[in-house]
Amino acid sequence: MFFFGGSGQGETDGSADMKDLLGGKGANLAEMSKIGVPVPPGFTISTEVCRQYYENKQKYPKGLEAEVEKSLDRLEKKMGKKLGDPNDPLLVSIRSGAAASMPGMMDTVLNLGLNDQAVKGLAERSSNQRFAWDAYRRFINMFGDVVKGIDHHHYEAAMDKIKKKKGVTEDLELDTDDLAEVVKEYKAVYKKHTKEDFPQDPKKQLWSAIGAVFGSWNNPRAIQYRKLNEITGLIGTAVTVQTMVFGNFGDDSGTGVCFSRDPSTGKNIFYGEYLMNAQGEDVVAGIRTPKPLKQLKKANPQVYEQLVDVKERLEAHYKDMQDMEFTIERGTLYILQTRNGKRTGVAAVKIAVDMVEEGKLKKEESVTRVTPNLLDQVFHPMIDPKAKSGATVLARGLNASPGAATGQIVFTAQDAEKWVADGKKVLLVRRETSPDDIGGMHAAEGVLTSTGGMTSHAAVVGRGMGVPCVVGCRDAEITGKSLVFDGKKFKEGDTITIDGTTGDVYEGDLPLVEPKVKGELTTFLGWADEVRLKGRRSNVDQVGMNVRANADTPGDAKKARQFGAEGIGLCRTEHMFFEERLIHFQQMIVAEDEKSRRASLKKLLPYQKKDFKGIFKAMEGYPVTIRLLDPPLHEFVPKTKQGIKELASKVGISASKLQSKVDSLHEANPMLGHRGCRLAISYPEIYEMQVEAIVTAACEVQQAGTKVLPEIMIPLVGTSEELEMLRERTEAVAKDVLARKKVKLNYLIGTMIEVPRAAIVADKIAESADFFSFGTNDLTQMTMGFSRDDVANFLPLYVEKGIFEKDPFQVLDQTGVGQLVELGVVRGRKTKSDLKVGICGEHGGEPNSVEFCYKTGLNYVSCSPFRVPIARLSAAHAVLKNG
Amino acid sequence: MFFFGGSGQGETDGSADMKDLLGGKGANLAEMSKIGVPVPPGFTISTEVCRQYYENKQKYPKGLEAEVEKSLDRLEKKMGKKLGDPNDPLLVSIRSGAAASMPGMMDTVLNLGLNDQAVKGLAERSSNQRFAWDAYRRFINMFGDVVKGIDHHHYEAAMDKIKKKKGVTEDLELDTDDLAEVVKEYKAVYKKHTKEDFPQDPKKQLWSAIGAVFGSWNNPRAIQYRKLNEITGLIGTAVTVQTMVFGNFGDDSGTGVCFSRDPSTGKNIFYGEYLMNAQGEDVVAGIRTPKPLKQLKKANPQVYEQLVDVKERLEAHYKDMQDMEFTIERGTLYILQTRNGKRTGVAAVKIAVDMVEEGKLKKEESVTRVTPNLLDQVFHPMIDPKAKSGATVLARGLNASPGAATGQIVFTAQDAEKWVADGKKVLLVRRETSPDDIGGMHAAEGVLTSTGGMTSHAAVVGRGMGVPCVVGCRDAEITGKSLVFDGKKFKEGDTITIDGTTGDVYEGDLPLVEPKVKGELTTFLGWADEVRLKGRRSNVDQVGMNVRANADTPGDAKKARQFGAEGIGLCRTEHMFFEERLIHFQQMIVAEDEKSRRASLKKLLPYQKKDFKGIFKAMEGYPVTIRLLDPPLHEFVPKTKQGIKELASKVGISASKLQSKVDSLHEANPMLGHRGCRLAISYPEIYEMQVEAIVTAACEVQQAGTKVLPEIMIPLVGTSEELEMLRERTEAVAKDVLARKKVKLNYLIGTMIEVPRAAIVADKIAESADFFSFGTNDLTQMTMGFSRDDVANFLPLYVEKGIFEKDPFQVLDQTGVGQLVELGVVRGRKTKSDLKVGICGEHGGEPNSVEFCYKTGLNYVSCSPFRVPIARLSAAHAVLKNG
Repeated sequence: MFFFGGSGQGETDGSADMKDLLGGKGANLAEMSKIGVPVPPGFTISTEVCRQYYENKQKYPKGLEAEVEKSLDRLEKKMGKKLGDPNDPLLVSIRSGAAASMPGMMDTVLNLGLNDQAVKGLAERSSNQRFAWDAYRRFINMFGDVVKGIDHHHYEAAMDKIKKKKGVTEDLELDTDDLAEVVKEYKAVYKKHTKEDFPQDPKKQLWSAIGAVFGSWNNPRAIQYRKLNEITGLIGTAVTVQTMVFGNFGDDSGTGVCFSRDPSTGKNIFYGEYLMNAQGEDVVAGIRTPKPLKQLKKANPQVYEQLVDVKERLEAHYKDMQDMEFTIERGTLYILQTRNGKRTGVAAVKIAVDMVEEGKLKKEESVTRVTPNLLDQVFHPMIDPKAKSGATVLARGLNASPGAATGQIVFTAQDAEKWVADGKKVLLVRRETSPDDIGGMHAAEGVLTSTGGMTSHAAVVGRGMGVPCVVGCRDAEITGKSLVFDGKKFKEGDTITIDGTTGDVYEGDLPLVEPKVKGELTTFLGWADEVRLKGRRSNVDQVGMNVRANADTPGDAKKARQFGAEGIGLCRTEHMFFEERLIHFQQMIVAEDEKSRRASLKKLLPYQKKDFKGIFKAMEGYPVTIRLLDPPLHEFVPKTKQGIKELASKVGISASKLQSKVDSLHEANPMLGHRGCRLAISYPEIYEMQVEAIVTAACEVQQAGTKVLPEIMIPLVGTSEELEMLRERTEAVAKDVLARKKVKLNYLIGTMIEVPRAAIVADKIAESADFFSFGTNDLTQMTMGFSRDDVANFLPLYVEKGIFEKDPFQVLDQTGVGQLVELGVVRGRKTKSDLKVGICGEHGGEPNSVEFCYKTGLNYVSCSPFRVPIARLSAAHAVLKNG
Repeated sequence: MFFFGGSGQGETDGSADMKDLLGGKGANLAEMSKIGVPVPPGFTISTEVCRQYYENKQKYPKGLEAEVEKSLDRLEKKMGKKLGDPNDPLLVSIRSGAAASMPGMMDTVLNLGLNDQAVKGLAERSSNQRFAWDAYRRFINMFGDVVKGIDHHHYEAAMDKIKKKKGVTEDLELDTDDLAEVVKEYKAVYKKHTKEDFPQDPKKQLWSAIGAVFGSWNNPRAIQYRKLNEITGLIGTAVTVQTMVFGNFGDDSGTGVCFSRDPSTGKNIFYGEYLMNAQGEDVVAGIRTPKPLKQLKKANPQVYEQLVDVKERLEAHYKDMQDMEFTIERGTLYILQTRNGKRTGVAAVKIAVDMVEEGKLKKEESVTRVTPNLLDQVFHPMIDPKAKSGATVLARGLNASPGAATGQIVFTAQDAEKWVADGKKVLLVRRETSPDDIGGMHAAEGVLTSTGGMTSHAAVVGRGMGVPCVVGCRDAEITGKSLVFDGKKFKEGDTITIDGTTGDVYEGDLPLVEPKVKGELTTFLGWADEVRLKGRRSNVDQVGMNVRANADTPGDAKKARQFGAEGIGLCRTEHMFFEERLIHFQQMIVAEDEKSRRASLKKLLPYQKKDFKGIFKAMEGYPVTIRLLDPPLHEFVPKTKQGIKELASKVGISASKLQSKVDSLHEANPMLGHRGCRLAISYPEIYEMQVEAIVTAACEVQQAGTKVLPEIMIPLVGTSEELEMLRERTEAVAKDVLARKKVKLNYLIGTMIEVPRAAIVADKIAESADFFSFGTNDLTQMTMGFSRDDVANFLPLYVEKGIFEKDPFQVLDQTGVGQLVELGVVRGRKTKSDLKVGICGEHGGEPNSVEFCYKTGLNYVSCSPFRVPIARLSAAHAVLKNG
């Protein structure tokens, strides 16, 4: 039995480090109590008792009764009230609390101690008859539900009957007499279901409630929750019995919430709201308008000073901005709860930096105070929070690329470019996007698609460009130039707003705000980098873990450097085959023989070389991993009759011949088709041209005085033989260029590990590879058998039903796919102990996945430029967590 | 140095069990020699010398020269001839030979010992000038090629010059003088490339040739061959120096080939052909017509009796039917080679059974004498071999389902059914088949498709039905009702013939023959089963391995039993949703809510129940694994505008509404889409109906007195959560039926392991599974990232380039996919040591894969009914090989 004191007297047996025994809640109350923060007194029955309870066939261990009696006695003495006292009853709450947070999974009983007599005493003491009767009927309801399993709807039916009789619809319209009648009816419900009268003996109430809380440890949803969250090794729940306090005992009572700093801006000001003669729920419910905290300073300076003192103490104690709930009962301040406060990204960074400068935090500690994903907000405009309340949400899709955007709807990429050229702001709305749409996506403020998942084309490209993007918005019906949400029709030129951070789509033109962070962010990320670059792991011969960016153009490469990328982990070359270059690539596709293919490829070489030179220059000697052509050829040819007719006339063959070529390229499952290195086995000249362009570009940039480190990456390898063959050809072409240019060049040849088989035979593949880069998008698709373009049909349901905790395309599936990554790393390094290993899938910028990569021994992660800061911070967290 | 004697004297140092030291060829010659079979004498330099040669920087070890001299001396004495003797030269061949067969990979030199003088002696002794000069020019060519690496085309150019001068086109038109001129020119070519005269010293020739053969051990193609065939641990090649003998020394000389039994029928008759005064190649070339062996009996009874004696001895010695080459040089018989003879399936079975009955083989030995795949021929009609020579081959596709078929071409399944109803025989020709075509496929004699691989729909269904099938015939251009092969046009009603065993397509109506096997096959497979059911493995608690069949209908189930299947490993339920049942399933697909879906499903229940009852009855208590619905819903709806219009009117909704439903079902990669258990997570009512049908059927059959053992299989599981959820529902439905029927029933609930992730987390999945069945078709697709419908575009090239030795959809990729199978078995059994594990992919009937399954510890394999005998025999082989 662990008593905690309250009112600053510190008569407390527990502390924060006793979570295992007292549960999170009990330990925290003890901790606050211990450092002199006034909390309503109470006591905690330990998790050890719960263990014994279950071992003992759900009976209380010997001696428990006596101990509880003793603690209760102590509590009654301390409070000067007695449980069930008809004049001034002590009321208590009975709460669950395990060592790990399981919010809402287990049971709670409030207002325990009320009975037909005590309710009158409470009414008297609170000078509020209605409050007392309301508390009583709530207690009967909750007790019946938690202890006896009486379904809530039985109570509701009773309540409805009385409301109907009175001709009202709202609970609030019931007066004291009505509530007394409700109590009567509720007791009848209780009796009907339990065949017993509602217990009037508060001790009996107490023991029943303790048993129910213990029982809730093993209710199905708690078991499921622990399973899903992989919470193991716990012995049970603690039970905390705590004095109830009320802020609605009169004008000298009140309640409020406050933050030790401004949670929106991070400024060091004491921020909060309160209401006098009110309960906590009144502040939240919005029926009465709460007052700003500074008014409390005038109204009750003594309590205010006490609150400021508590705030200082708690912030200093927890070393973080605190979000506190307080109640004033008859002039006495009680803190009901404190926790680290939620905050915006901007605030998080500012607070972390300020607290170091105030001497309250060490740099390393400050790094842990910012949740990596919060940084997403720091770089993107948001919808003005004030504007959100009145806005109409049309639908919700997947939050594919963060940031908010507003603009006029257009339905084709061409229109997007045209309208923007005319000075308009547009949102591109498509069923799905394709590589053809890149120009339009770039021009648009944001993109909305009705199909596709988090790694669909629109999502990947949107994130890469930093264009806000909502995808897979299934309620958006797009037909021709019409967009319909549940009957509400929008046409070209109408304005909507999307929030890529949440996935919401709004009607009209909502005001956006640009987040402001100044020097703090640079300072903060610098500290994170210090931590990140010190990480030492036993399974990799490199200190720290690098963060690279996925970038396909010189512009993206520059952006990546600004965001702190230490190289490019994935430069996709196929994006370089669009626009005016597309026709040459199409010529190559329709060519009848190798000679004609080579002739067309030759025309593409200067373009590629120029791109690579720009990228190498921008990256100033940092490694640049260039992936050779990956997508299937059919992505480069038109599918419509009209498109085929046009292309046929351009390339000078008959439409029927081109149609039959296009037909022959069609694939039932393009994801598993003729692409990646399989194309290069069929048409070696494609990669030969690309390698020539890369090596030539590298030579020329190096000769002009900038360091270069190209890493040539061969995609979709599944067998060692493929890589061996293609490595040979790559080396031959490179050797040839170097001889011609008379240059010595450092370059690497490696592969993506994205086909499950590649991970399995990684030891063999490593023989021909200087590096591995895990393409976890495709690896996830193939390992799980999920087409990312099609999962929208069932994945949401999978997450909803708890089959997956998270979308595996967002958060790496460590249980399954992760095992293949580990296997690939271990086997690859078995062959080559110094094999460089990275990740370039979408997971490279996701905090949990970054930690996994760090633990698995990867040399770097790579992600879209905008996520580089997130990855830098996530890696720092991984270092602090795993050493 | 290992001498072998010849002429039956048995002066031999080696034997057959010295393959490691003497290579296969050397050991075999020694063995024959040892048992008194006359072989041309010679000696073998061991592989150990080759090892030393390489360790010693490609120099011969000390003492080798003296030893070779000694052996040569012994050989010359034995033959009464001397190397280079101008009057009667000894000629020798120098041949490679490693412990493992590497056919054609290393080098050989024939006719060594010829020079400008010896050629004249040879001419004299053979009484054939032209022969002698032809032998000499061939020697110069071969020596230059093998020893000096002179490309063959240089010699060819010299030859062409002379032919042109003489105005002839064929080598055979050159006379002795011409050939003497060729020798002169060839020597000039040799000198031009080596800057040396062609060596006249036979000893010098000999040492050069020995060195070249050693060298060929490490030529690139030999290295590649060993790598591809995973031949490791060998120390090098042996070199055999053997006397050349000639069958064209006059009318007392001759040559022939013979089989110890008839290789077509297996009858125990001595069978062969010979030619007097001829070389081996004359028998093969078909310029002169060889005589049947029985004529030799009359012409030269002494030699014939000697040959019969040798045949008897070799067959008894090798315990197998022998295929021998012999030469008679001046009345003396030499055996040049013996090997186990190739034979037809029918012959193989008959020989194996006969030899047991003749007391020459034990039953267990006889089991190894039949290659499992040969059994394919035993059950299917073949093209009459006599008819093949004159036939026009139109194209070659993939040999997807064995057997030959001939018929009139039809282009739709409906036409096939119609024409067959009119009494015609048809071949169904389609680009690809779909579930809609099943009726037509069943009616047709055979099926030809232009797309798809070995596991395409047509291939899988064809094999299942035993309908001959050629798929992926890319040279067949099919447009509407026209079929064109390289410009040659065929229309509806024209007749063609396909050979599903080879993949060939022929013009016209070729005669077919039905293979005849009588009781021998049953006897033989009985012996194989005895072996198979005795296999003991340490990794599975079951003696032997069972063979089941994949069968979807009561008819297939009966067939499966006839072929000896010990249960059904895969009963696909979706085939039961076609024909008159389809409309109900379509109704379900378009239904708006669960209630309407359940109403449609209810109509399907009686159909399913009836099918299951038929199957359970046919299987008489053997286990029946029923896979719940697997394919995506879009496979059940029409794709064309017309089809949609028709269906819309049938189901009573608007065409546009149906179109939009069909659109919403479309998937980019259906292979990785919304199918299998994912459908059941979305629409639990589908599996509930199926489970109800299965369990009800099982109850009724059991109540009628037939044992049943249903195994309910949930497909496409990737996570333990899916199976846990669906198992719960399955059990609930089953419990309900059993209570209603008042029956106790044994049934199992298990899953397919076909998603790579499932193999990885098999330990978790096993918690809810009574059995695993590896679906290696899909597992191969996802692990390798190969869509089986699309691989035809590149897989043939992969096999050609040696990236794969075999199509991984035919032969399980043990290096990659196999590791996942092993992992799945090991992890599954870690959770449940008695987990029943089988395989139901196409690999279940492929001999190598069956052996792998046996070694991996599977309880059973399952394959199409026609392959059951092959699997039974393969499993027996696996037992004999692995214990």
